[in-house]
Amino acid sequence: MRMAELSRRTGVPVPTIKYYLREGLLLPGERTSPNQAFYDASHVRRLKMIRALADVGGLPIAKVRDVLDTVDSPEEPFEVLGTVQKSIEPPSIEGEGEHWDAARKHVAEVLADRGWPRDLDCPPAKTLIAALASVYELGRDDLAGLVERYAEAAEQVAVIDVATVTEARSLEDVIEGVVIGTVLGEKMFGALRRLAHQYATAKALGIDPDSGERE
Amino acid sequence: MRMAELSRRTGVPVPTIKYYLREGLLLPGERTSPNQAFYDASHVRRLKMIRALADVGGLPIAKVRDVLDTVDSPEEPFEVLGTVQKSIEPPSIEGEGEHWDAARKHVAEVLADRGWPRDLDCPPAKTLIAALASVYELGRDDLAGLVERYAEAAEQVAVIDVATVTEARSLEDVIEGVVIGTVLGEKMFGALRRLAHQYATAKALGIDPDSGERE
Repeated sequence: MRMAELSRRTGVPVPTIKYYLREGLLLPGERTSPNQAFYDASHVRRLKMIRALADVGGLPIAKVRDVLDTVDSPEEPFEVLGTVQKSIEPPSIEGEGEHWDAARKHVAEVLADRGWPRDLDCPPAKTLIAALASVYELGRDDLAGLVERYAEAAEQVAVIDVATVTEARSLEDVIEGVVIGTVLGEKMFGALRRLAHQYATAKALGIDPDSGERE
Repeated sequence: MRMAELSRRTGVPVPTIKYYLREGLLLPGERTSPNQAFYDASHVRRLKMIRALADVGGLPIAKVRDVLDTVDSPEEPFEVLGTVQKSIEPPSIEGEGEHWDAARKHVAEVLADRGWPRDLDCPPAKTLIAALASVYELGRDDLAGLVERYAEAAEQVAVIDVATVTEARSLEDVIEGVVIGTVLGEKMFGALRRLAHQYATAKALGIDPDSGERE
């Protein structure tokens, strides 16, 4: 198909497609004349993936490229996971002092208790340490204990994720599933947690969650 | 204390403190002379909260102000939750077509099955619909079934959250707990899920998670 049709099918405007081509996110179509190229189903799919990661996943274009580069040069799923995690992780803050020491110690204990990899320097561990240090700095030690309980629930979710993703037919689909599961899965879980908060808060307060009235 | 001391105690640079004062995120200190003001423990605490929401939670300053405005005019915790959710939710994308219809139907079913509020227009429901529509658009219906399983795990997490937050001594602490739990809790859970992914993926592939070698 020509670019106009590619745009129509994916809902992505032509100037945006041209931008993605320039930035190397989308592979060039097959040239049929100096001014024309032909695009196929792989381009449609790739555009949808770019939109999913950028619009829904909220990743900046440079990170979308990092993630797609990983998908393009398929390594082992375990390596892909590491690269995707690194790409999507926001830059982490590092700090010093008693609250940070407490956070680091707490996270090391959780990782050891669960038998998870003990690397405190990997991107998600750094994010966790920063969030926990913040909770300690705010003097809300009462909330720090949530980490152990979250860890248990997170492991349940991760085991389901891995089982679901590895059921895919091809290695390509597994790799893509890792990317979608990591980025969109996080959006979905976050939204579901917030929906569940409405329900659980209303229940705890004896409020009808649909009307907001006290029952 | 004077502003220099406030800066030293919180690690927030003086120009940044002045910016927060101008933007109304931080209440003015008590004037002791035309050029001097006195700050107290409430300013220290507020600055820590601003940094937690902005630096760790990743909220833009305008959203931090929305959240703090809610904390300042305490409504019922249920109302606060709604306001905080609205403030932190990224702008949601809306779309049309079969994939969006399928996503809306799917989300409505999940809400009904779990007995959660059925409002498809609330911010987290919109985020969930957009993420799920994206999964359908990518033709990965095999991943859409994750939503039911996530919903179950999310409810467990939310019930723990609400029980923990409502244990706080004062209404102020409960309100603050809702804010911290919603914003930092999401960061913590996301990081833990990614850590658990490393563990679960390595386990499924028979890889030693610490060395990355096949066992």
